[in-house]
Amino acid sequence: MLLTSKLAEELYESVKNLPIIDYHTHLPAGEILHDHRFANLWELWLKHDHYKWRLMRGCGVDESLITGDAAPKDKFLAFASILPLAIGNPVYQWAHMELEAVFGITELLSAETAEIIWAEAELQLENSISVGSLLEQFKVELIGTTDDPYDNLADHIDLTKSNTTTLVIPTYRPDKYLLSDDIDLAALKKRHDYFSQCGCKMSDHGIDQIPTPGTPAYQALLEIAQWNHEKGWIMQLHLGPQRRVNTRLSAQTGPDAGFDTIGSWTQTDNLIHFLNDLDQTDQLPKTVVYNLNPNESTALCCALQNFQQGPNAGKLQYGAAWWHLDNVRGIREQLDLTTQLSALGAHIGMLTDSRSFTSYVRHDYYRRILCNFLADKAIAGEMPNDSTLLKQTAQNISYHNVKAYLNL
Amino acid sequence: MLLTSKLAEELYESVKNLPIIDYHTHLPAGEILHDHRFANLWELWLKHDHYKWRLMRGCGVDESLITGDAAPKDKFLAFASILPLAIGNPVYQWAHMELEAVFGITELLSAETAEIIWAEAELQLENSISVGSLLEQFKVELIGTTDDPYDNLADHIDLTKSNTTTLVIPTYRPDKYLLSDDIDLAALKKRHDYFSQCGCKMSDHGIDQIPTPGTPAYQALLEIAQWNHEKGWIMQLHLGPQRRVNTRLSAQTGPDAGFDTIGSWTQTDNLIHFLNDLDQTDQLPKTVVYNLNPNESTALCCALQNFQQGPNAGKLQYGAAWWHLDNVRGIREQLDLTTQLSALGAHIGMLTDSRSFTSYVRHDYYRRILCNFLADKAIAGEMPNDSTLLKQTAQNISYHNVKAYLNL
Amino acid sequence: MLLTSKLAEELYESVKNLPIIDYHTHLPAGEILHDHRFANLWELWLKHDHYKWRLMRGCGVDESLITGDAAPKDKFLAFASILPLAIGNPVYQWAHMELEAVFGITELLSAETAEIIWAEAELQLENSISVGSLLEQFKVELIGTTDDPYDNLADHIDLTKSNTTTLVIPTYRPDKYLLSDDIDLAALKKRHDYFSQCGCKMSDHGIDQIPTPGTPAYQALLEIAQWNHEKGWIMQLHLGPQRRVNTRLSAQTGPDAGFDTIGSWTQTDNLIHFLNDLDQTDQLPKTVVYNLNPNESTALCCALQNFQQGPNAGKLQYGAAWWHLDNVRGIREQLDLTTQLSALGAHIGMLTDSRSFTSYVRHDYYRRILCNFLADKAIAGEMPNDSTLLKQTAQNISYHNVKAYLNL
Repeated sequence: MLLTSKLAEELYESVKNLPIIDYHTHLPAGEILHDHRFANLWELWLKHDHYKWRLMRGCGVDESLITGDAAPKDKFLAFASILPLAIGNPVYQWAHMELEAVFGITELLSAETAEIIWAEAELQLENSISVGSLLEQFKVELIGTTDDPYDNLADHIDLTKSNTTTLVIPTYRPDKYLLSDDIDLAALKKRHDYFSQCGCKMSDHGIDQIPTPGTPAYQALLEIAQWNHEKGWIMQLHLGPQRRVNTRLSAQTGPDAGFDTIGSWTQTDNLIHFLNDLDQTDQLPKTVVYNLNPNESTALCCALQNFQQGPNAGKLQYGAAWWHLDNVRGIREQLDLTTQLSALGAHIGMLTDSRSFTSYVRHDYYRRILCNFLADKAIAGEMPNDSTLLKQTAQNISYHNVKAYLNL
Repeated sequence: MLLTSKLAEELYESVKNLPIIDYHTHLPAGEILHDHRFANLWELWLKHDHYKWRLMRGCGVDESLITGDAAPKDKFLAFASILPLAIGNPVYQWAHMELEAVFGITELLSAETAEIIWAEAELQLENSISVGSLLEQFKVELIGTTDDPYDNLADHIDLTKSNTTTLVIPTYRPDKYLLSDDIDLAALKKRHDYFSQCGCKMSDHGIDQIPTPGTPAYQALLEIAQWNHEKGWIMQLHLGPQRRVNTRLSAQTGPDAGFDTIGSWTQTDNLIHFLNDLDQTDQLPKTVVYNLNPNESTALCCALQNFQQGPNAGKLQYGAAWWHLDNVRGIREQLDLTTQLSALGAHIGMLTDSRSFTSYVRHDYYRRILCNFLADKAIAGEMPNDSTLLKQTAQNISYHNVKAYLNL
Repeated sequence: MLLTSKLAEELYESVKNLPIIDYHTHLPAGEILHDHRFANLWELWLKHDHYKWRLMRGCGVDESLITGDAAPKDKFLAFASILPLAIGNPVYQWAHMELEAVFGITELLSAETAEIIWAEAELQLENSISVGSLLEQFKVELIGTTDDPYDNLADHIDLTKSNTTTLVIPTYRPDKYLLSDDIDLAALKKRHDYFSQCGCKMSDHGIDQIPTPGTPAYQALLEIAQWNHEKGWIMQLHLGPQRRVNTRLSAQTGPDAGFDTIGSWTQTDNLIHFLNDLDQTDQLPKTVVYNLNPNESTALCCALQNFQQGPNAGKLQYGAAWWHLDNVRGIREQLDLTTQLSALGAHIGMLTDSRSFTSYVRHDYYRRILCNFLADKAIAGEMPNDSTLLKQTAQNISYHNVKAYLNL
């Protein structure tokens, strides 16, 4: 799957068993701590996954069977029945990769196979599958969660005392506290220090765009970046979403329900201003910028290169394909831009950005696409057909680079 | 042609003979009614086709041989002589597909072959080819024309009484009446009702962008959308052209002469506002949005998905590649975006948007590209290599989906 | 390399030995006149090449080893050691093409091979390689330099009296004189006339975008365009760079040091206004527009087609992929857009835009990508698989079209 040449298969063999460092997720630390178990495929797949909800709406499923009060199994049957309409969509691909990797099920999910797959999955979920077994199966070495600065991180602290083998570190995400005109930076700084004590190594910012220079939000972001730089943290910028654009349905469902879209604003002007302000005083932290609008991809990836600086390779990273772009097309595009405009060999690779423990197949998905990309380039003569160099590149992007980037 | 694998050929076999539902065209109903005949290749190809005019200008042909008073045959010879410069251009591809499908001519058109092709075509046009024979040959089941709201639709009415086997339905296109500050909505509503009585099922709007919310044009468009919703009509939005940018030559030639280009304005802001306003009161009709600027493609296709709703799959459609994007690259791009961001299997497929009866090869062109796209994806492992599912998808997109969408 | 089919190889055979017409470069005429020699790979490769500097920064190299005062050999070793991180990047590809074409070295450059390659190159540079030998080896028929209007062009004049076989013509580039509000157009016109006497055939304008209509800069550009039209000159517009965005480092290094990025402004509005103003009075010169933001590519290429006019094919040219887009992806994209939106067969092809005499491999690079592009299209059935027509197209784009465009 996704490997279209012998060389691609050979490269994939060299990375497929590497551990996973999933540095940005929305996984709940508590479920890791308590080795959570799932009742059925609805809880595992449909309870929280707004990607699937959105797709179901696109296929005409009634809202009662999506976020409404229909029975879990009926919701699953509704999902299964529309899935064949979505061939090629990442939701289709991931669902089948998860069925195979987690349950050993290789049949295509549809109205015809839904009952039997539901039953088989339920059986396995009851008997053998838990959060812990999934993390072990997928060799997850590190998980970065996404946390409110005022979270006490009790679960994270308990996790350090538990025998969980996966390292679970918090990420400082202050979005909602930066919206007012009266931002309490002193308090936020205290929490930044506290997060650091709890093992945090990154901040994360999910924003439509870098705020206008001179505004309180801009100044606050600048200050947080300086704290990051001081502590050696990484700054993650998730730029671009326009949220809850369907006001009627999102009022009904709440946030993060599949009504967030790609904003059409320009990113580079404010971003360049921001990076330059930090660079002036040599306080620019390691920074990863994730982009949601393919319109901005080239200019944005190019913009970052103006602020690269030693001593390490790839201080600024054009982040892996994200959200609406997290698909074969988007991943190849991100790899190609990184190749053409910077040093691919310094890229830190994939993260799930997911709330689901079965999403770990997305690292496999990414590794396949990466290896196929490298093989295609080598076969076309755009890269040297040097198996050692190609494998080393694939391995570094899959695992080693991010480990070094996080100073692990 | 355009089929690069066995699988692609197999899929194409399953769709190539399906009838054509050409739901949006600029064909003149009168020529269907009167079974019009064509004198020669100039009348068939060059009299109205501003795609060809534009290409001829790009190849240095004098305007007298394009829209001027040169003799028809000289204009054709000029076109033939420059055509080899345009290999790969859709005009080149379509011209050769039309020569083969309509006349059985497989030679490449050039200065060398122009005389003999002109003569052969003239002979066949005199003896055997008419509008009716073309519609029969191409199995055209339905044609949607594009009409002024104040048109009396006499030809359409007469067609329902004729023995024409193709169903010809009008489309309500009120563009020019929405430009004033004093829009007569009561009168337009009467015509909307009249069109409905005459079998109309769609409105169409060719605009640079959705008007600014709150303006008279915006309110008028909103009201028409509500009429559409009430009647179960489909709303087609053709967004993006910047018209007549060459003022000197377009003053000389009149409108629609090859001087319309891709506007660089942003589409999603106003569009999202518009769709959301309609959705608030649950009055959003089925909507097809055609986009002209590839810049906007991803954001626009993504924006539509926020307003999907049952009971039918694909209520909002990201329309087939249009005008300057109606080429192999544009069609693949449109299919790929539809696949990644929504449910490809619910897509309603191709339309000619043409004023020429030989343009029906464009459905064959589209079906080939579609089948090749599906086969490429299956071979690469991005879709299951399941021949039944792939054929069903290809057939639905080629024919069945649009039939259901139109409630035929 | 870069040829993925028999057909591609066959087409490449037909163009690989054609002479080079390098109509836009930043080469110093004096070095041609004096048959300059290079001390080592640092002087040849790293002394002036901000593409390499930028890449080195991205790989964490210290500035002292880039533009600082480290020893030439140490700078080369630093470059060699990071190069493997950049597989697939054009800098990687060009470096290896240059090593092979100029020095016959086929090993991959890395920390391991750096010493031996440095030594081998030094030997050859001392014994056999000069500017003249390179121009002869690459069959460079014409070089267009880029010159200040107030340059006395002494080297160019001396070159016409020398026995250099390459024709070296100046290009009129008045950028910095168009920035004030008090532009001395009379003086610039005199220099325009002087340049014409010295064999100049082109002006060149490196600007962020066409100035706002009505401003002094706009009016000046309009006037220069009219002078160009009067003399039959070509106007080159390099649109899009946002310069020196890293203020701290670019203050340290000076201009053109790798801190210029892709501007995110819209190009078509002002450009259409400009072309239309010139067209109104029939004073639009031959024009080549180079674009830096892929965002604007389709709209920009499309915009030019509205102003095409005889008697020659391809009066307006969507210029070859430039700077950050001068890579496999960018070149294919430019060729594809040209194919889909205009007449590929009228395209004038590649230029190096370089300051390095070994950059002539970029014509080979381009010809390979061009031939592979044509072959791919023919094999996919998007172009006729007609070897004569394809070769003619490849040859015209590689050499003949630009010769005619320059009236040579």
